[in-house]
Formats: sequence, structure tokens, C-alpha cells
Amino acid sequence: MDTTQRIEAALSDALAAQQGMHGPPRLSEAMRDAVFPGGARIRPQLTLAVAQACGADDLGLAAAAGAAIELMHCASLVHDDLPCFDNALTRRGRPSVFAAHGERLAVLAGDALIVSAFQSLAAAGADLPQRLGPLLQTLAAAVGSASGIIAGQAWESEPRVALADYQRAKTGALFVAATVSGAEAAGASSAPWRALGEWLGEAYQVADDIRDVAADPDTLGKPAGQDALHGRPSSAAELGLSGAIQHFDQLIAAASASIPACRGSAQLRTLVRLQAKRLVPVELARRVAPGIARAPV
Amino acid sequence: MDTTQRIEAALSDALAAQQGMHGPPRLSEAMRDAVFPGGARIRPQLTLAVAQACGADDLGLAAAAGAAIELMHCASLVHDDLPCFDNALTRRGRPSVFAAHGERLAVLAGDALIVSAFQSLAAAGADLPQRLGPLLQTLAAAVGSASGIIAGQAWESEPRVALADYQRAKTGALFVAATVSGAEAAGASSAPWRALGEWLGEAYQVADDIRDVAADPDTLGKPAGQDALHGRPSSAAELGLSGAIQHFDQLIAAASASIPACRGSAQLRTLVRLQAKRLVPVELARRVAPGIARAPV
Repeated sequence: MDTTQRIEAALSDALAAQQGMHGPPRLSEAMRDAVFPGGARIRPQLTLAVAQACGADDLGLAAAAGAAIELMHCASLVHDDLPCFDNALTRRGRPSVFAAHGERLAVLAGDALIVSAFQSLAAAGADLPQRLGPLLQTLAAAVGSASGIIAGQAWESEPRVALADYQRAKTGALFVAATVSGAEAAGASSAPWRALGEWLGEAYQVADDIRDVAADPDTLGKPAGQDALHGRPSSAAELGLSGAIQHFDQLIAAASASIPACRGSAQLRTLVRLQAKRLVPVELARRVAPGIARAPV
Repeated sequence: MDTTQRIEAALSDALAAQQGMHGPPRLSEAMRDAVFPGGARIRPQLTLAVAQACGADDLGLAAAAGAAIELMHCASLVHDDLPCFDNALTRRGRPSVFAAHGERLAVLAGDALIVSAFQSLAAAGADLPQRLGPLLQTLAAAVGSASGIIAGQAWESEPRVALADYQRAKTGALFVAATVSGAEAAGASSAPWRALGEWLGEAYQVADDIRDVAADPDTLGKPAGQDALHGRPSSAAELGLSGAIQHFDQLIAAASASIPACRGSAQLRTLVRLQAKRLVPVELARRVAPGIARAPV
């Protein structure tokens, strides 16, 4: 089973465990639409890559941890698209969950995905309690109200916010959870893997800001221009497109450099490079900032 | 520390663990308003009473499990009150979370309370993994999309629903979790305690239906007449007020009779009797159904 198949299987298993035979069918459909077909699954890809780099003997727990993080990501997208937030009708090139299933089922599907994330991780780690405890706390911290993605979204309701706190919570937290969980699932020390998650989270946020300004909605799969529309902080607005692209390249270089010396480091650097190309493609950079020199990763 | 203090302390600890020093302050306030001041805390009271009846050596884990169930209950109230569901402006005699803090923070506070429930239970059970696993699965099932409270709420979006499935999920699930978790936290067999949760859940639902019709909004602390307004199934509508009160009394008698023979059975029967009096007070029954004979519990 390759990595992509492993991740999709772990996500399917997590949903199947929640749904049972006799639950409300429309809610099941809404949950499924929130999770499949997915995007690049970059967070679980990272979790598995770090677990392999740490020499994990069995990738089952890492796949479950990565899937739990992805479920949280999907839950946050479903709730972020609600009318009271972005009121977004499309997501990944298809109707958003709220547009397809209505506001009520979108609220409930998001709730149920949060539950599903904890439930599936707890089930997968039942036989490895020494690893499960840290994994559950990592997952909770990455989404929670102090510095997780829920906090990130809530900062938009505050009169004052430090841009770094906002972005670290809104985007960085799940990337840190992805790398840290990979180490925890492998029974390795997680501290050396934090920096990789932090750099990638920041790079991803900058790429998202760039694409919100520079990509067309078809490529994006969701409405463009949302940051300006909602008055959200954006590095593209702050640094200009050329500046933001150069900042992105620096962050990717820092991410790559932060990878600890280990058996799987070359493979991880390849993953980082491929993600960077996917996030800010050469053509996009040429089109919107033709003059800039981009550092090779 | 008496039971009530123990429950309030466990709830405070759970919120404190989530909030940290630097999280968004408005979200913290919204979460606090969702949990404090609480109602009767009947679910955690049950968890602790069952744990004691099962001879629990240490009530810390039972208190955490009961608090986690109460946090899920609070989360569901916050989301149920949203404009897309009940659009309720009051709850427990005060502005609902959505009325006081806006729709965005109400969505996020509900999400964060779900996270908080799992996080605090996982932390409390870290040293007792054999008990933690079942407790986490019990909590997840009680709220999940197959037969938990999220399923219960989602049944309202289905064209067809079996009344029993709906009520069992919407109200019964958390009561079953409350009694079952008490046994699990004590390291005892949970099967003998399911029936007590099921009977009490059903009784609570009937009482809720009766109060929605018969109580005034001041006593209720929330708008009355919601079931008729939202076209929800109601035993008060189905059986009439007198019939519903008699049905309630029968359910309470069945709950009391289901309590397994154990050291704490007398104490538990007292708890059931007190709750019954609180839920459908003698005066209310006299006022709305003056002729009926009520069975003593």
C-alpha cells in the first residue's frame, strides 16, 4: 500500500467507524463530502514521512494520527465556509458542504468530524497507550482554543491581534501537529521535528495569501480575493506579490534545512520540494512577478 | 469536597487546560458562559454516583469523565441555539451564547468545548490506559454521528425518522454515557448500568416535552413552546399532558428498579427520586393535570 492509499484508507475507516448502520443518512453524506475527494493531504503525508524518517516499525498509528489531523482540517473548512464566516459556496472546485447540504448539516458535519478525529485516533492507539497520550494532546492542542485552529479563527473576532499569533494558530498549528505526531507515532522524540512543521505552516500560509490574490478561482477551487474581502491580514498585501513569493522561498529553504539528520531526510526534503512547487508553481510566479529570482530548494 | 464542588472543579480544570495565557479572550468568555453557571449537572452527578456505587477507589477519573460529558452537553446547547437551528436568545435564564457573543463565536465555542471534553478526559486517564480507552469510546459514541447527540440533532433534517431513534440519540445517548462511564471509571463492568441511563434518558426527554408545553419561560430559563414551533416530535403532544406525566412516572420507576444490587444502590435511588421531583414538580403536575394519580417512587 503506498502512502496515498494508506491515508485514504485511514480516512475511510475513521468515517466508517462513526457512521454505523442506522445513523441519519444525510449527515453521513455531508461528512463524506467534507472529506472526499480531498486535496493534496499534505498534513497526513507529512505525518507518515516523519514517522518513516524516525524508523517507525508499523505505520498504522501514524496513518491514523495523520488522518485525525486531516479530519480536523476538513472540519475547519466546513465551519469556515458557513454563512457567518466566509459564506463560501465552493471548495475544492465543488459546492461547499453548506452549499450542498444546508447550514444545519454543515454545522453538524463539522462537529461530527471533530469527534471522529479523536475517536479514530483513540481506537488506533488503544494498544500503545504510551504513544496515544501524547498524540491525543498534540491533536487537541493543534485545534484548541488557546493556540489551535479554533483559536486562529476566533482571532478574527478580536479587535486586536498579533499577525504571528493569528497565522501560527490558524495554519501553523496543524502543520506542527503533523510533524510532531509523526515522531510520536513512531515512539521517537518529537522536539527535533517541531521546526519543520512551523516553517512549513508559515510557508503554506504565505502561499495561501499569494494564491488568494494571484490564482484564478478555477485553479483555486474556491472563491479568490477572500482576504481583502474579509479584511484579513495577508502577506501578499503586506509584502507585495514579489516580496511574498521571495518570502515563501525563504521559508521553504528554512523548512528543508530544519530536517534533522536521519535515515529518511532525503525523502523528506523531496516531499518539501514537491509541495513547494505545487503551492507556488513556477508559472504562477513567472506570470505575477516576472522579474524575481527564486532560490532553488 | 462534595460532589457538586468536585464537578465544578473538574469543569473549571478542563476549561483552564484549553485556554492558556495568550488565546483569544472573547472565545474564552464565550466558552465560560456556555458552561457556567450550569444547570443541575445531572449527567456528571450520575457518573459520580455510579462510580461510587461501583466502589471507585479514586473519584478523579469519574469526575473528569462526568465533566467531559457535561462539556459535550454544553457544546450541543450552544450549537442548538444557533440561528440555523432554534435561534434561541435565552438559555438557563440568561442570553444564549449566540445572543451574547454572536454567531461566529458560538460556532467556535461549541467546537472548542468538544475538543476540551476529549482533551481533559485523555489527560485525566493518562495513567489508567485500560480505563481510558473504553471511556473515550463511550464519550465518542454518545455524541457521534451514528447514534449520539449529533445524530439526534441531524435526524431533524431527515424526511423520515423513527421517534425512538431520534430521542435515544438526542437525549438518551448522554445519559447512557453518564452511567456507563461511571462504571468504566471505577474499573467495573459497565453492562449492568446501561439500563439506568436508558430509562433516565427517556424520562428526561418526556419531562422536557412536558415542561416545553406546561412551564413558563421564567421557570424554564429558555423559550417555551419550541417543540410545536419547530414541528418536533413530543410525547406531550402525543399522549396529552396527563398521559405524559404518567408515562414519566413509569419511566422513573423503571429507572429506579434497574439499579443493580450494590453498596450504593440506596443513594442512587435517592438521586433518581430527587431528580424526578426536580424535573416534573408536584405543583406543576397538580396545576396542569389536577386529576391524575402519580405513583410514588
